[in-house]
Amino acid sequence: MKSAQPEFGKVVVFGTGLIGGSFALALKAAGAVEEVVGFGRTPSTLRSAQALGVIDRAGINPAHEIGDADLVLVATPVAQMPEIFARIVPYLGKNTIVTDGGSTKGDVVAAARVAFRGHIGKFVPAHPIAGAENSGPAAARADLYRGKKVVITPLPENRDERLDRVKRAWSLCGADIHELTPVMHDRVFAAVSHLPHLLSFALVHDLAVRDDADLFFTFAASGFRDFTRIAASHPEMWRDICLANREALLGELDSYRAQLDDVRVALAAADGSRLEEIFGIARKARREWAGEG
Amino acid sequence: MKSAQPEFGKVVVFGTGLIGGSFALALKAAGAVEEVVGFGRTPSTLRSAQALGVIDRAGINPAHEIGDADLVLVATPVAQMPEIFARIVPYLGKNTIVTDGGSTKGDVVAAARVAFRGHIGKFVPAHPIAGAENSGPAAARADLYRGKKVVITPLPENRDERLDRVKRAWSLCGADIHELTPVMHDRVFAAVSHLPHLLSFALVHDLAVRDDADLFFTFAASGFRDFTRIAASHPEMWRDICLANREALLGELDSYRAQLDDVRVALAAADGSRLEEIFGIARKARREWAGEG
Repeated sequence: MKSAQPEFGKVVVFGTGLIGGSFALALKAAGAVEEVVGFGRTPSTLRSAQALGVIDRAGINPAHEIGDADLVLVATPVAQMPEIFARIVPYLGKNTIVTDGGSTKGDVVAAARVAFRGHIGKFVPAHPIAGAENSGPAAARADLYRGKKVVITPLPENRDERLDRVKRAWSLCGADIHELTPVMHDRVFAAVSHLPHLLSFALVHDLAVRDDADLFFTFAASGFRDFTRIAASHPEMWRDICLANREALLGELDSYRAQLDDVRVALAAADGSRLEEIFGIARKARREWAGEG
Repeated sequence: MKSAQPEFGKVVVFGTGLIGGSFALALKAAGAVEEVVGFGRTPSTLRSAQALGVIDRAGINPAHEIGDADLVLVATPVAQMPEIFARIVPYLGKNTIVTDGGSTKGDVVAAARVAFRGHIGKFVPAHPIAGAENSGPAAARADLYRGKKVVITPLPENRDERLDRVKRAWSLCGADIHELTPVMHDRVFAAVSHLPHLLSFALVHDLAVRDDADLFFTFAASGFRDFTRIAASHPEMWRDICLANREALLGELDSYRAQLDDVRVALAAADGSRLEEIFGIARKARREWAGEG
């Protein structure tokens, strides 16, 4: 029996997989939550989440679960969030704070503004940076967020105490808290995550559709393996991320295409010193980033 | 004391680093060579190679070492090969076979034709697919080629027995022997190795030259790490490879840029089904390649 009152009473999680399930397990491990209620698309997933101790019980009707919740985490694919926001907003309690785990923020904030209207101050957008190959409740881990970054993208309407509560929840999960505007968040992740995925998918596709594709794959080695590891990611998930962050991603893709045009000019002119300069700047930055600088 | 005569008498290696040194160590470990003589650009490297047992002695003058050699491996950077070919051709013996370890073949063959002229049949081009981060004699390992691919790109002038001797030497190193034409070799490696390096360098450079580069690198995570690992490669080496394989690489770069144009059209039109199709084909091919299909 715990002597102190947990910091959070009821926490409701929409989506009990890797992101939502790990959030629930981490808060439980920290003794920071009284009860976790889970919503999901299929009864079997919720049963599995309950059997694994990820949630305490499955929710049936948001009308009965949202009003007295301290915190609601919407941890579904971004494409499903507008509908979930619409389902929960009518029942928001005085102290209910809603946050999300979406990997894009501009579109989530836009959808939230439509659904929350005058209550938008109760929605604190967030993006935990902790992907993994696996999904579903069985992939959830109490330590998933330990030492990982969580980016909060506060809205002007978020009161400080609500912001602090969401930060506190993620801190209890062991995460390092960062803040960006939603626009800057989307630019940054377009550049360092979404674009590399797009480029890697494009390279493998370009080879795979050739008549003699097998010949090429036969001689692909370790550099190819590293470069294309992310091309084994889920097509539907990445389709949704690309569409959700379309505007920023188009900007980054165009910047990259201009960069490739420059590289092509140098290569066509056999301009070795320009190629070496580009490669040298890249190598230095990559090594510094990896702590090998 | 070995009872049987080694299959190769004297083997001469130009470049006693990772590629040439490992070849020498592997033949020695197989008991397949009587003597290994090394040539290199600096006396200290040769002393180190000798101290490590990679070579038996350092060569001074090709005029005294090439005529009675069974096999000469030119394992220097490709840019140095024309000069080395010119130095050894005057001294080729009746039974001397020359091969190389260059990662491009069209340019090496062209340089060899200039130097060897009527003796071009004695040059059997090859490319061992075994890169590693480290270089120099200390990086050489007897098992570097075990289970790795070596691509031989035979010339019409190569007699079968010479081809077989070169294949046999690499087989003794534990390698799997493949054959491609020089042109096809260069296309394949432009696509699966040189282009990915170029794309990875270009991505990191595109970020590194921004005023707010730090912000982007702060949020780069595991996908970025894998995609950009090859952007930490040596700028000079990759400059030389890109220049050496310029024509094939330009072709592959243009194919890729056309692919990116398609991706951009789909993204700009929010054509989710086309994006999912591209990603799905790529994922399936990547997983099959990695044996996860």
